[in-house]
Amino acid sequence: MAYQLIEGGGVTSPKGFVAGACYVGVKSRKSEKPDVAVLYSEYPTSCAALFTTNKFCAAPVILGREVLKKGKARAIVINSGNANAATGAQGIEDAKRVEQEAEKLLGLGEDEVFVCSTGVIGQRLPVEKVIDGVHKIVPNMSAEKGSEAAWAIMTTDLVRKEVAMELKLSGGTVRVGAMAKGSGMIHPNMATMLAYVTTDAKLSADVAQKMLKESADKSFNMMTVDGDTSTNDSLFLLANGASGVAIETEEDKAAFAALLDEICIDMARRIASDGEGATHLMIVEAYGLPTEKDAKLVARSIAGSSLFKAALFGKDANWGRIMAAAGYSGADVDPTKADCILKSAAGEVVVMQDGFGTDFSEELAKQVLTEHDVTVVVDFHSGDGQATAFGCDLTYDYVKINGDYRT
Amino acid sequence: MAYQLIEGGGVTSPKGFVAGACYVGVKSRKSEKPDVAVLYSEYPTSCAALFTTNKFCAAPVILGREVLKKGKARAIVINSGNANAATGAQGIEDAKRVEQEAEKLLGLGEDEVFVCSTGVIGQRLPVEKVIDGVHKIVPNMSAEKGSEAAWAIMTTDLVRKEVAMELKLSGGTVRVGAMAKGSGMIHPNMATMLAYVTTDAKLSADVAQKMLKESADKSFNMMTVDGDTSTNDSLFLLANGASGVAIETEEDKAAFAALLDEICIDMARRIASDGEGATHLMIVEAYGLPTEKDAKLVARSIAGSSLFKAALFGKDANWGRIMAAAGYSGADVDPTKADCILKSAAGEVVVMQDGFGTDFSEELAKQVLTEHDVTVVVDFHSGDGQATAFGCDLTYDYVKINGDYRT
Repeated sequence: MAYQLIEGGGVTSPKGFVAGACYVGVKSRKSEKPDVAVLYSEYPTSCAALFTTNKFCAAPVILGREVLKKGKARAIVINSGNANAATGAQGIEDAKRVEQEAEKLLGLGEDEVFVCSTGVIGQRLPVEKVIDGVHKIVPNMSAEKGSEAAWAIMTTDLVRKEVAMELKLSGGTVRVGAMAKGSGMIHPNMATMLAYVTTDAKLSADVAQKMLKESADKSFNMMTVDGDTSTNDSLFLLANGASGVAIETEEDKAAFAALLDEICIDMARRIASDGEGATHLMIVEAYGLPTEKDAKLVARSIAGSSLFKAALFGKDANWGRIMAAAGYSGADVDPTKADCILKSAAGEVVVMQDGFGTDFSEELAKQVLTEHDVTVVVDFHSGDGQATAFGCDLTYDYVKINGDYRT
Repeated sequence: MAYQLIEGGGVTSPKGFVAGACYVGVKSRKSEKPDVAVLYSEYPTSCAALFTTNKFCAAPVILGREVLKKGKARAIVINSGNANAATGAQGIEDAKRVEQEAEKLLGLGEDEVFVCSTGVIGQRLPVEKVIDGVHKIVPNMSAEKGSEAAWAIMTTDLVRKEVAMELKLSGGTVRVGAMAKGSGMIHPNMATMLAYVTTDAKLSADVAQKMLKESADKSFNMMTVDGDTSTNDSLFLLANGASGVAIETEEDKAAFAALLDEICIDMARRIASDGEGATHLMIVEAYGLPTEKDAKLVARSIAGSSLFKAALFGKDANWGRIMAAAGYSGADVDPTKADCILKSAAGEVVVMQDGFGTDFSEELAKQVLTEHDVTVVVDFHSGDGQATAFGCDLTYDYVKINGDYRT
């Protein structure tokens, strides 16, 4: 591939993007972690976004759908610690106030700022605190503060999630950067997940929206932590054209789309890997299904099986649970032909072949499953459909974290 | 209702049913628990059955579908410790041998014995041991041994699940009994769940099948432990007419159907209550949805939410997760009108009203959630659709049990 990693890069690596963050105490609990961030493009943009499918969606999502219609948002204000969900008309008013204050401060027009919130559901957003944060951040934004923003948006995440890459095209070099937060309530069709992708390539809003959807279907929508689709999930792409390079030829479009896939998959892997309580990243590769749709159903079903997730935590090569999950996925599968392989940096072990369990080495299997990143390969030899899903194991810590998150 | 509990009753409480059980060591692990059971009707029957929707279904399920076609099975052989799933043609041959041996021993014709297996997937059934068990059991079956059979079918279940009730009809009294096993891999559209319902009422096979499906849709198909639909789930109804009472009038049919519902719901509650690692039974009552289908989606989605299950374990009245689960259920819900109440023997607390969180007493909520049986009531005030689902909490022990089940 023609694209290259930008070491230490993130959401402000593409030209013309700046960011900033600060601590205002959105959650009354004391913390040193910043909890408000602003991401801003110094140039006009084409923007694209995808939002949660949860009907019980948060106020910022309701507002965001409106902002998206204009397709030219230049800034995003994000707070962690409070989801501004289940807050009714008051919540929408609060989110709108944050949006309007930011638009005024940044000298932008109506519907040019997205607002995002993540955290506890059902408590009123401390709107004055968030606005106070925006006032503090805006005068001090810079291209060096992308990483601070990535920190500010974290909730129960343990690690920051950011990446940037560059791509040489016929007309010059373009950059794509991203940051995300994940952790719990993570499931296909958006997770409790906020992800922000920036690029200095020049794209129309229509092309941006189409490409973002296609990449999301290979990445964020193929990821599950706990099967709970959140009220706040949002994915954004801001393209500001600051590189002077327009994505126009079919060849450039294909190259750029591949890079966008790579960036989104990278973020999805990091979110799954840092799932609440996770000790393993689970990558499920499904092959040989009649259609791609079948393959997606199978891959996601395995990645989401509580029983196999618990087995992975216990380093138990319980392939029966893998096949059971394939069987109830709703996909057109024929288990009598299936192969199943468990792989990691420690090696690989064929646990099932032609529909039968093999006499594999339990010791080797345990070694394979001791690695952090574990790949489950299933092949049904019934067609060309293939897909990859991302998940994590189910651990004591998931239960612990979610047994007393709110109180 | 006209039906009454038969104290200490079970699957052999209806007239003309006998059972027996013994230990043969299906799982090599030593145990004192019996692991093979036989249930037998001394009279010809009409039988009905429902099987798992998992495509990766076990050999006994494949065979069972054939036996069901004749609709007159009189006996069921059940083993725990081995699921006889993912065992290919060999598995079917093994199950067939058990069936045929039992038919011979019991003097029955072809397709008159169901075979059921539950336990580990992917290991060959120790068929000689199971047949040996049948030989031991058959000469010593009695109406007193229903409870022994209920013990034999348990895997990680902690308690036996059996019940019997009687009902006075115009033509006399009929009895319905049941036993079941559950624990993990429990999810709608059949769970790792085996359930056996017997009755001495006289029913046609067609009516039996229809009634069984309707009752299952209110009970076993509204129950979830972990979202994993097993390869072996089966529910049976044997009606032998030994009471001499035929269910023919519409009134009798309605009364009998209500009793069958009650029996199936009772079993489903017990299975959910004894879910792997569970410390709570969760009963979710959804009201005021546009349709019954919407209500079922909402109730099951809440009962299945990993996040709310973990919150229940932590006695945390995290109603935001309840509403989020309603929101992603796929049902037609309007969260802005919703009420949510948490109830138990300790009292009740309204945590959400007209779409807003209330200023409820956290202390009272904790008391309510300290009880074993907790009811979540949601009302969307948007129609007459209502449904009830059964689940349990997600605990450290679920993870522990499933982290090293096989090894």
